[in-house]
Amino acid sequence: MQEVNLGLYFLSELVGTGLLLLLGGGVVANVALKGTKGNNGGFLMVNWGWGLAVFAGVLASAYSGAQLNPAVSIGLLVAGKIPFTLFLIAIAGQMVGAFLGAVLCWLTYKEHFDIEPDPANKLGVFSTGPAIRSYGWNLVTEIIATFVLVFVIFAFADYGDVQVGVPGALGPLTAVPVALLVVGIGASLGGPTGYAINPARDLGPRIAHAVLPIKGKGSSDWSYAWVPVVGPLIGGVLAALAAPALLHFIAA
Amino acid sequence: MQEVNLGLYFLSELVGTGLLLLLGGGVVANVALKGTKGNNGGFLMVNWGWGLAVFAGVLASAYSGAQLNPAVSIGLLVAGKIPFTLFLIAIAGQMVGAFLGAVLCWLTYKEHFDIEPDPANKLGVFSTGPAIRSYGWNLVTEIIATFVLVFVIFAFADYGDVQVGVPGALGPLTAVPVALLVVGIGASLGGPTGYAINPARDLGPRIAHAVLPIKGKGSSDWSYAWVPVVGPLIGGVLAALAAPALLHFIAA
Amino acid sequence: MQEVNLGLYFLSELVGTGLLLLLGGGVVANVALKGTKGNNGGFLMVNWGWGLAVFAGVLASAYSGAQLNPAVSIGLLVAGKIPFTLFLIAIAGQMVGAFLGAVLCWLTYKEHFDIEPDPANKLGVFSTGPAIRSYGWNLVTEIIATFVLVFVIFAFADYGDVQVGVPGALGPLTAVPVALLVVGIGASLGGPTGYAINPARDLGPRIAHAVLPIKGKGSSDWSYAWVPVVGPLIGGVLAALAAPALLHFIAA
Amino acid sequence: MQEVNLGLYFLSELVGTGLLLLLGGGVVANVALKGTKGNNGGFLMVNWGWGLAVFAGVLASAYSGAQLNPAVSIGLLVAGKIPFTLFLIAIAGQMVGAFLGAVLCWLTYKEHFDIEPDPANKLGVFSTGPAIRSYGWNLVTEIIATFVLVFVIFAFADYGDVQVGVPGALGPLTAVPVALLVVGIGASLGGPTGYAINPARDLGPRIAHAVLPIKGKGSSDWSYAWVPVVGPLIGGVLAALAAPALLHFIAA
Repeated sequence: MQEVNLGLYFLSELVGTGLLLLLGGGVVANVALKGTKGNNGGFLMVNWGWGLAVFAGVLASAYSGAQLNPAVSIGLLVAGKIPFTLFLIAIAGQMVGAFLGAVLCWLTYKEHFDIEPDPANKLGVFSTGPAIRSYGWNLVTEIIATFVLVFVIFAFADYGDVQVGVPGALGPLTAVPVALLVVGIGASLGGPTGYAINPARDLGPRIAHAVLPIKGKGSSDWSYAWVPVVGPLIGGVLAALAAPALLHFIAA
Repeated sequence: MQEVNLGLYFLSELVGTGLLLLLGGGVVANVALKGTKGNNGGFLMVNWGWGLAVFAGVLASAYSGAQLNPAVSIGLLVAGKIPFTLFLIAIAGQMVGAFLGAVLCWLTYKEHFDIEPDPANKLGVFSTGPAIRSYGWNLVTEIIATFVLVFVIFAFADYGDVQVGVPGALGPLTAVPVALLVVGIGASLGGPTGYAINPARDLGPRIAHAVLPIKGKGSSDWSYAWVPVVGPLIGGVLAALAAPALLHFIAA
Repeated sequence: MQEVNLGLYFLSELVGTGLLLLLGGGVVANVALKGTKGNNGGFLMVNWGWGLAVFAGVLASAYSGAQLNPAVSIGLLVAGKIPFTLFLIAIAGQMVGAFLGAVLCWLTYKEHFDIEPDPANKLGVFSTGPAIRSYGWNLVTEIIATFVLVFVIFAFADYGDVQVGVPGALGPLTAVPVALLVVGIGASLGGPTGYAINPARDLGPRIAHAVLPIKGKGSSDWSYAWVPVVGPLIGGVLAALAAPALLHFIAA
Repeated sequence: MQEVNLGLYFLSELVGTGLLLLLGGGVVANVALKGTKGNNGGFLMVNWGWGLAVFAGVLASAYSGAQLNPAVSIGLLVAGKIPFTLFLIAIAGQMVGAFLGAVLCWLTYKEHFDIEPDPANKLGVFSTGPAIRSYGWNLVTEIIATFVLVFVIFAFADYGDVQVGVPGALGPLTAVPVALLVVGIGASLGGPTGYAINPARDLGPRIAHAVLPIKGKGSSDWSYAWVPVVGPLIGGVLAALAAPALLHFIAA
């Protein structure tokens, strides 16, 4: 393992997570905001949009192993695959990237934000919210969905084809499995909470929503904000703990 | 071939089939249950959800060759690719995994199960039912659809790239063909019976439906339960018998 | 090049084209026939269904290079890649396979054929028909769409990764490009005529429609039947003639 | 690096961009024009259609590195990956190809153009237009969307698997990432302007729209025509300038 350049590690996570939020927020904007060409495009379109947002982000974030998600990073930390310093740097890059990606998304859809009458639709482009507000069950949903994400990524990693958390020259097709996985998690487990499954993906844009001068914006719904942070972190830790027991046969 | 660890073999099928049912049941819940974000998302969304559920399950089930389905296992048994002991262990892992996956799916969508008024929609998240009840023709449909599944998987296996039924280190892209195949079978042959094409996928969750304290649940429809068990088993056996005659040219 | 077994060559085309028509007809049945679970699933679902039908067919038809289509075969003949004997055998296998696949599709959806009131929807499961009947323009559409299919397949072949028309051990991922190509052609060029782009795909099932005892069936529309035969053959020949001029740089 | 044949370089871009516009325009025609089989197929269908149009175009354009887009070519020029002569030849091939592809698309859908009552729908098959006309913000959207396209393509190229701008024998699966990227950009960033993200893709067909004898056609909307030319060129240049700073870690 070559020496890690901390600045590039930070930048790699920032760029990848920035692309993730620009494209991921974008597909919600396209489906939800008034007057867009993709208006009312359906949930499957949202699923593909987010999955391919991950795809683009992974392709541009090879140096840091394309974590793009504190739930993945904490899983790698718990599994002993990255040291605490890299964990912190990754999280920082992800948060800044998610914030900036959300800003770019707002600029891309600026005219549609301006004419959209419903503040909830505007917030929905930035951050997730529950279909039925029930903090306990919403947390359960986010834990389970994130567990699936991180657990299956650990299964990839153990296959030896994809290096997680270390610099490496990945071919572009290695981004396909994680993209498909996110399409599937969205379609299957996104119904109750809109599948944050990523604290940075939710919190970074929520901060952007709070500080940006968005016309006619409403509340940033801070009372819910802890759920898509805590749930995914728990799910990521559980996945890292479960993986050696449930997947170690691969290395055996 | 290295010695098979029976416990890991069981666990591998359990984990893979558990993910299959969590995600597969999940997409039906998302499309069918009241108040979800993916409500009325369409049949193509269900097809992608199930196909990518297989994708995730296969990725986490490499040790046992990712059978995830008694129809595949009986095909491997008939073809002489796995011994009877492994066949039984695989089935057991699949049944337990399918049950547990359905339980997790219910927890993920707990609030939506509670407010959904139609008991048939609740059962539909767990198990399949016919569009037109006609046991004979429903059986024909399940036989044909499962034949296609197992037959084409045998075509993969003969290509030499994918090892079926033996431990192996598969790269993550090898899960793509079976995922696409299941998307296609669902879209094309799922219209009459909802494509169980897998006895464990249908029976395990039906048992879960019967024993779980689901609010306002109706019948578990046991009168139909044999069709998605018997049909797929027949289809799997027929595929294993047909493969040497219709696909042996590949090995020739 | 090893010696070709003519019987296996025939069988390979028969099996692949049979799967193509079972799954391809199936998705139309699912979307069009009364009471199915995929009813009104949309044109994109039809595109994916047909694309993945090709995917399954290709996987099971490696011995003969997975032509599955007289327009491809005539292109290979014109390009000097297969001799006339193999061309004839391939066509025969494709026609028989297409007929049998359509029969299996009818059995899969038997109950839904029986309750569907509109004879045009029943024929549509078997064979294509024009959105606007205009033989000249319908022919133009089929020629252009088939040209794209065969021309781009020739581009694959020239890449050296995929062997067309000769026995070969293809990995399962090599079926992905042709599947995606067919999804794309369907979405983009299928609007006016329903993209037969394959004489066997259209004529074999039309014969099946004519001879099967389908309840309440109407005309088999023989007056249109020549268009999806002649158009694709012209398109395939033009592609084979154009490929050396427009793609030969690849080999240069 | 072998010597470049300028005629083949031109032809390669012409053929690839021709396929791009035939298929890309085709999916819009299928969704938008009266009486087609894919009418009202939804924005996700348009996204897949355009993504797979790129897929087909890339497969047939290996000699010139499948640029197919002046925004990509100017990025390669700025990055010093192609000389000015090849840049000019690529642009010329792209413009002629885009024009010819649009003509073929019109012929494919001739009967549907004739019965479509709305001139705006006819123009929409050829060229993009804004959902909300606001040249400044429309330009911002096109700059951002094209930046994502070219930036992520540069990330591919740095992976070493895909050669951009030089002759090479690419396997067919290498066209998958760029196709998926275009599906994602369309779904996520296509809402405000219909994602031209390619000057040739927009201007070539607009010229075709102006000169073809399309029944009942309206204005070619020349007042907007500069936006999808200037915006993508700026985005491509910015991506080429940003790539060494934000992606050079890959080569490091």
